[in-house]
Amino acid sequence: MPGWMASYDRGKAVQDGVAGLVVTMLLVPQSLAYAMLAGLPPHVGMYASILPLLAYALFGSSMTLSVGPVAVASLMTAAAIGPLAAPGSAEYAQLAVLLALMGGVVLLLFGLLRMGFVANLLSHPVISGFVSGSAVLIALGQLKPLLGIRASGETALHLLVSLLSHARELHLPTAALGSAAVVLLWAARRHLAGGLRRLGLGPASADIAAKLAPMGIVLAAIGLVVAVDLDRAFGVAVVGAIPAGLPSLGLAMPSLTQLQVLLVPAVMIALVGFVESVSVAQSLAIKRGEAIDPDAELRGLGAANLASAFSAGFPVTGGFARSVVNFAAGARTPLSGVISAALMAIVLLGMTALFERLPLTVLAATIIVAVVGLVDLATARHAWHYDRADALAWGATAAGVLVLGVEAGVGVGVALSVGTFLWRASRPHLAVVGRVPGTEHFRNEKRFAVETQPELLMIRVDESLFFANVAEVVRRVQQELARRPGVRHLVLDMAPVGHVDLTALEALERLHADLRDRGIDLHLAEVRGPVMDRLVRTGLPGRLSHPAFLSLHAAVEKLAPGRPGQGRATPPREPERTPA
Amino acid sequence: MPGWMASYDRGKAVQDGVAGLVVTMLLVPQSLAYAMLAGLPPHVGMYASILPLLAYALFGSSMTLSVGPVAVASLMTAAAIGPLAAPGSAEYAQLAVLLALMGGVVLLLFGLLRMGFVANLLSHPVISGFVSGSAVLIALGQLKPLLGIRASGETALHLLVSLLSHARELHLPTAALGSAAVVLLWAARRHLAGGLRRLGLGPASADIAAKLAPMGIVLAAIGLVVAVDLDRAFGVAVVGAIPAGLPSLGLAMPSLTQLQVLLVPAVMIALVGFVESVSVAQSLAIKRGEAIDPDAELRGLGAANLASAFSAGFPVTGGFARSVVNFAAGARTPLSGVISAALMAIVLLGMTALFERLPLTVLAATIIVAVVGLVDLATARHAWHYDRADALAWGATAAGVLVLGVEAGVGVGVALSVGTFLWRASRPHLAVVGRVPGTEHFRNEKRFAVETQPELLMIRVDESLFFANVAEVVRRVQQELARRPGVRHLVLDMAPVGHVDLTALEALERLHADLRDRGIDLHLAEVRGPVMDRLVRTGLPGRLSHPAFLSLHAAVEKLAPGRPGQGRATPPREPERTPA
Repeated sequence: MPGWMASYDRGKAVQDGVAGLVVTMLLVPQSLAYAMLAGLPPHVGMYASILPLLAYALFGSSMTLSVGPVAVASLMTAAAIGPLAAPGSAEYAQLAVLLALMGGVVLLLFGLLRMGFVANLLSHPVISGFVSGSAVLIALGQLKPLLGIRASGETALHLLVSLLSHARELHLPTAALGSAAVVLLWAARRHLAGGLRRLGLGPASADIAAKLAPMGIVLAAIGLVVAVDLDRAFGVAVVGAIPAGLPSLGLAMPSLTQLQVLLVPAVMIALVGFVESVSVAQSLAIKRGEAIDPDAELRGLGAANLASAFSAGFPVTGGFARSVVNFAAGARTPLSGVISAALMAIVLLGMTALFERLPLTVLAATIIVAVVGLVDLATARHAWHYDRADALAWGATAAGVLVLGVEAGVGVGVALSVGTFLWRASRPHLAVVGRVPGTEHFRNEKRFAVETQPELLMIRVDESLFFANVAEVVRRVQQELARRPGVRHLVLDMAPVGHVDLTALEALERLHADLRDRGIDLHLAEVRGPVMDRLVRTGLPGRLSHPAFLSLHAAVEKLAPGRPGQGRATPPREPERTPA
Repeated sequence: MPGWMASYDRGKAVQDGVAGLVVTMLLVPQSLAYAMLAGLPPHVGMYASILPLLAYALFGSSMTLSVGPVAVASLMTAAAIGPLAAPGSAEYAQLAVLLALMGGVVLLLFGLLRMGFVANLLSHPVISGFVSGSAVLIALGQLKPLLGIRASGETALHLLVSLLSHARELHLPTAALGSAAVVLLWAARRHLAGGLRRLGLGPASADIAAKLAPMGIVLAAIGLVVAVDLDRAFGVAVVGAIPAGLPSLGLAMPSLTQLQVLLVPAVMIALVGFVESVSVAQSLAIKRGEAIDPDAELRGLGAANLASAFSAGFPVTGGFARSVVNFAAGARTPLSGVISAALMAIVLLGMTALFERLPLTVLAATIIVAVVGLVDLATARHAWHYDRADALAWGATAAGVLVLGVEAGVGVGVALSVGTFLWRASRPHLAVVGRVPGTEHFRNEKRFAVETQPELLMIRVDESLFFANVAEVVRRVQQELARRPGVRHLVLDMAPVGHVDLTALEALERLHADLRDRGIDLHLAEVRGPVMDRLVRTGLPGRLSHPAFLSLHAAVEKLAPGRPGQGRATPPREPERTPA
């Protein structure tokens, strides 16, 4: 039983009930719209908005995350299945179910292996660039239903060319209705909350009421279609017949080929969804001093995707906009999601007829206005000022999504995140240190006026030693030695070193042998406990001419006893600077 | 002009001449054998052993690396081209040239971009596991020519099954000759040097003479074929007609499709070859106090591959066995390689007829005995005792090569190297620190008897802060805060932090905002100069309630002045241990 159940009370129930109702009002149009974005019949979005919410409530760790269909995962679903089956076909729907199933299994597996740390494999600029690029791609793609044009293409360029070359097909009534919806939704988003506040509503209520605008506009559009017969008389495309009732539960047996083809996209959708989800959940949890357990999130989202697969759905994850609404509407526990699920079931059981004449162009407008808010230029600007490498990662990932498509975009992003990191790690910081006169402190000789001895070279290694940086460390150590021909003792200050992997150990062994041949003794100082435990097993410390020193001070006392040391003649460049 | 030319003298010329001659005696059989391993006519191996050596001599940085055809790159070449063209066909040869061309361009490009650090992306256990797995795969594959069986397969399992199912095709004369060659080569490898030493030869000369055994056995085998007519009378397969003369220089224009298909394998072969090569060059250079410049190596190997492509060759790189022989035979400069190239040219111009009746089974025996020495169980054992994660990486990479094939094996290896590293980086070391009584030193409270104040929590962050570890750092900081409800000031000791990326910066900003809401002040101390320069641009230090402290001592003096501090009642577990 999840922890929150134990301390549940009536007060929380009321808050969860209100939040659940508010979220449902947003979830109905979004679930229809995102299913359409994924290339599926709109009602599949409602199927994916019942059991997954229950599953997440049981296994997830966030109190306020709203799980269900979301924009980016839907786009990725369309990109994965589009080349394999015709949108609208039974096979297409089956492949979407399979994506959810495989994604669920992958997430559960990662959760059981406690691999929540994979959420950290994508840096924030890469996530932001990815979501921003995807948002633009989604908006471009939705211009088709919005304007009633039949274009195609999986990259921004293809889409643009296709849209322009089909521009003359523009269906005026559709385009007019869609554009009006965009303008209204946009105006509601920008000004409705303020307007309601000026009318006397409390700020929180005004914000929530404004979030219900999509539902209002959807209902108004349905009213308009019914009143003017926009669909039958003017040819405006509508959702069409929705099978009433809950989805039948079950799973078709997938073929091995299907599993093979969908494996990579399923893993990508699951992990990207997980990363997005955790970052939303975390930013909300922190506001209330709650904690998110990434491993529990893996299990919760895994269970939600399995539940989606069992109810004929498609990949789901935690959505940004709905979670924020859920939080703002006062949700205290995942029971808010359970209530949403119950309300969605009621809609599916009795109110589907209402949405049959909902114009697709209005759904497209909903999506466009929702995703435009995801374009995150603020992070790009911030990165540009703070760290050009991060800005480059943002730009390259966004460009990758637009030019190469959404799957290659993820690849570009991960490669850039990891590449930048390895590049940085491969240029570790080393400092030649000396004693601050009259103390037992040792500092970087470039920044402090310190004493050094001609036969003693002390180098502080400022990172853990591992395969990607040890070659550079050895190279720089040799460089320093070449500059100081009188050195007889090299002392490595290992205080900052938290780990020494096998590659680094072997490099140290080689350095030791090389120095021994040249008549220079290698010494270690301030080795941390766990690092020393491991080194002792290899016998390296025993082969050194002196056991590892507890401190640099002890090393100096032993290796250059009684020597006054040579003070620096010139003061360091930045004597009063912080230590480095 | 390379630096070594300036100080060249007659003494070096003699040493280089001897080494060049010795290497050529090894290079002739190896070049024929590795071309066969790559699925090419044997003489192509000789083509790849002339101009590449000259090119490397001009642009490389190692004094003793012997460049040319090597086992692993040849295996990877066969794996890349095998599915695209029939071995022996003109198209196959053209694709091999293209691999060398593209690899050369990639290496040069990396060299110009000074990206030598990519050599560090593979940990030693991964390289060792990869080479070991490849060696077994190569040896299994060579059982076909050795036994005269026509089997096929790209993975160890396929090869084994295919070998067993074709076992009845075993060609007795071929198998007998091949097995004898294996036994002789093996015996020469194990016992010849010792035997020669016992006969009175100096140790160095004995070692070198023993390395010439392959050439001796090749010549003996040719003699045997000629004497008994093994090829015509008994059907033992031989090399066959070799076009005499040097390769004609030039390049066919590749098609776009060919470039696309070969891009990934070309990059892989080039980079794996580069990594192998640099590690051989480095281990030899270190013995003489010479230095290797990875960027120059990229240029040298890039030029060598371009040269190979222009002379109808295939991918080349620095070989382990030949470089060791070159070093041991006394090579002082790359002129040794130039002499080998000249001697190879002479062989091609006048002595190709000699090798026409060389039995393929003897070449296969040469390869098998050469690669068995590459199976590096010592590293696996070492890793097992030192660090299980590294042992796992070795095993998984070797298994990946055997089960999935050589290309997927590289992928497994890189993913494991990088994955292990990110996993480690994602669990950074933090220490709650306190003052060592009576000093200005601050140490881990778990390892030292230190003073702490109830309203002041000081945490030392022991790694650079970046996207992969900052979430965990914040989580652990919050955990420590939750344990100490009285804390009003949190001081982060940033001394070990060398870099803060944008993701980490934003997390710090969020932590600051969150703590402020809870009435806790965030402080920074001992921020390194370059880190502070960047942070200042974001305004974060200015928004803190107090400017960053130069030292923890200054922080305590300001935030908890005059308080005696609470000594630890119980002594720490390991009070005399090295600092952590």
